[in-house]
Amino acid sequence: MRLGFDVGGTKTDAVVVGAGDEIVARVRRPTGWGAPEVVRTITELVDELAASLGIQRSQFTSIGIGMPGQVAPGSATVAHAVNLGVDELDLGEAIGMALGVPVRAENDVKAAAVGAYALHGMGRARADTMAYLNLGTGIAAGFVKGGRLWRGARGTAGEVGHISVDPNGPLCRCGQRGCIEAFCGGGAIAERWNRAVALPVLDVFDAADAGDPAAIALRDGLAYGVASAIRVIVLSGDVETVVLGGGVTALGDRMLSRVVDELAAGAAASPFLKSLRLAERVELLPPGSPAAALGAALIGAAAEAPVAPEPRSSDRQRSDRKAVFHG
Amino acid sequence: MRLGFDVGGTKTDAVVVGAGDEIVARVRRPTGWGAPEVVRTITELVDELAASLGIQRSQFTSIGIGMPGQVAPGSATVAHAVNLGVDELDLGEAIGMALGVPVRAENDVKAAAVGAYALHGMGRARADTMAYLNLGTGIAAGFVKGGRLWRGARGTAGEVGHISVDPNGPLCRCGQRGCIEAFCGGGAIAERWNRAVALPVLDVFDAADAGDPAAIALRDGLAYGVASAIRVIVLSGDVETVVLGGGVTALGDRMLSRVVDELAAGAAASPFLKSLRLAERVELLPPGSPAAALGAALIGAAAEAPVAPEPRSSDRQRSDRKAVFHG
Repeated sequence: MRLGFDVGGTKTDAVVVGAGDEIVARVRRPTGWGAPEVVRTITELVDELAASLGIQRSQFTSIGIGMPGQVAPGSATVAHAVNLGVDELDLGEAIGMALGVPVRAENDVKAAAVGAYALHGMGRARADTMAYLNLGTGIAAGFVKGGRLWRGARGTAGEVGHISVDPNGPLCRCGQRGCIEAFCGGGAIAERWNRAVALPVLDVFDAADAGDPAAIALRDGLAYGVASAIRVIVLSGDVETVVLGGGVTALGDRMLSRVVDELAAGAAASPFLKSLRLAERVELLPPGSPAAALGAALIGAAAEAPVAPEPRSSDRQRSDRKAVFHG
Repeated sequence: MRLGFDVGGTKTDAVVVGAGDEIVARVRRPTGWGAPEVVRTITELVDELAASLGIQRSQFTSIGIGMPGQVAPGSATVAHAVNLGVDELDLGEAIGMALGVPVRAENDVKAAAVGAYALHGMGRARADTMAYLNLGTGIAAGFVKGGRLWRGARGTAGEVGHISVDPNGPLCRCGQRGCIEAFCGGGAIAERWNRAVALPVLDVFDAADAGDPAAIALRDGLAYGVASAIRVIVLSGDVETVVLGGGVTALGDRMLSRVVDELAAGAAASPFLKSLRLAERVELLPPGSPAAALGAALIGAAAEAPVAPEPRSSDRQRSDRKAVFHG
């Protein structure tokens, strides 16, 4: 029985995963603020899940924890999880040693990529490549290639949010102009819309439907940004499917239909783009999907396995892969 | 002894590769026009190389042939090699059966990626990921990841030339606006410069140095296009190194310094981009490099190996990899 956590800025999603990678239990609760409260949120969820299954904590064989922050591959330490009030947190010490269960941490987008891939069942059905494109406050993607998480040479694979797709586009918080994230990041849209509403992107879509020109420009920009990210991902890495998730996808088909229109406009202009059938290769993660928590559980399972000796000391890539995803 | 060919629009580069992947002989000659002449060019080069080494044709164990066209993975058939006047050509029949040596074909950019990777010796030194970015008439990249050629789910990995990086940019031959290729493809620049000169890109650089505003705009666009391709490749796929090759790189440092300036401008604007150290990760293939012919020879060597049974019929990816690169 493997535990998986998706620790988000507002809530934490926890799952127990069985031998066939199926979810046997799931609980969600608000996330506490700051490292001690984050640890308490996770620990209490472990107890709650153990109780609901009528088992002991020690019967869990591994814990995987996805968090919005930087995680060194194969480690259990999260850094710069700004949304959680966590500067640095060693979850191996705080959770693993306390509960006597091995722990692995992972960046939440990468965990969601692994989980979306498992849910998609692509390993069984088609070519085993997928990207998960997270449309949240920021924009980032996670890649699964050859059935494994692709981290890249320096761990920055999937940072498509900061690719500029318009030299005259809006200024991005990163300092560049026209970044994909400046067009379609929830944070960037909220800043540019600049109204005190609970769900700025939803408000933009409502105002655009009512004919507000500024809202229409933001909505068009969002579609352009997401479509650009999809084009970058497929024309560069050529994954079979791009799965969209994250807060902005709560708009569901209202958002997706704009993106599909933008992709269709590109296909109408270019026979080459048309041949790629991009619109057919895009999917939305269902609302409330447990992808990130499931992915975290699958990644955490690697903590169980004994670590094999390195074939070559310089070959960081292979050891990363071994560590992150038992597929 | 493995043979490798890079069949280009003007000349064909042929190498013989020894057991340690070292080049033991090399010959270049003009390429004939049309399928029968292309076959004759290759066949005569085989004889010339055999004679120069004092061996029989039959002592060559495999032939790999890189060509600008579409090649089905693991096959010896090239389609749409427009620059060579070849619509479709089965090199297995035309060359392999005639000489009694197994043949594999490969797209020339992918062959060059494999060869550049082998020349770079990255498998021994650092993370084993590299992109080869071909700056020729068109723009395309080949990826080596985990020591293997990465083709993608549908064989279009590396088609970065047709990613738009400016919605108001120049019209591309593909139909979109602002494609990377529309900015920095040798063909697009020649069309927009529209002067009857032998080397349009060189002419543009000379005219730009003399202060011609149209030439300066084209030169700036070229730097923007190449830098955009590098940013797309690294921020999406995160390869360690991007190696530039192709006709446009004949300009050497005159071209590269403009690209490095453009990358530096991005890094100055964005601390995140700066942290990626993109300028340090770009290299030029030396003029006259045998990368494509060497890569073709390495790919061709896979034709020697007995084909193992498919683990799963749907798993095209794995069989592709097995077929293309014995690393």
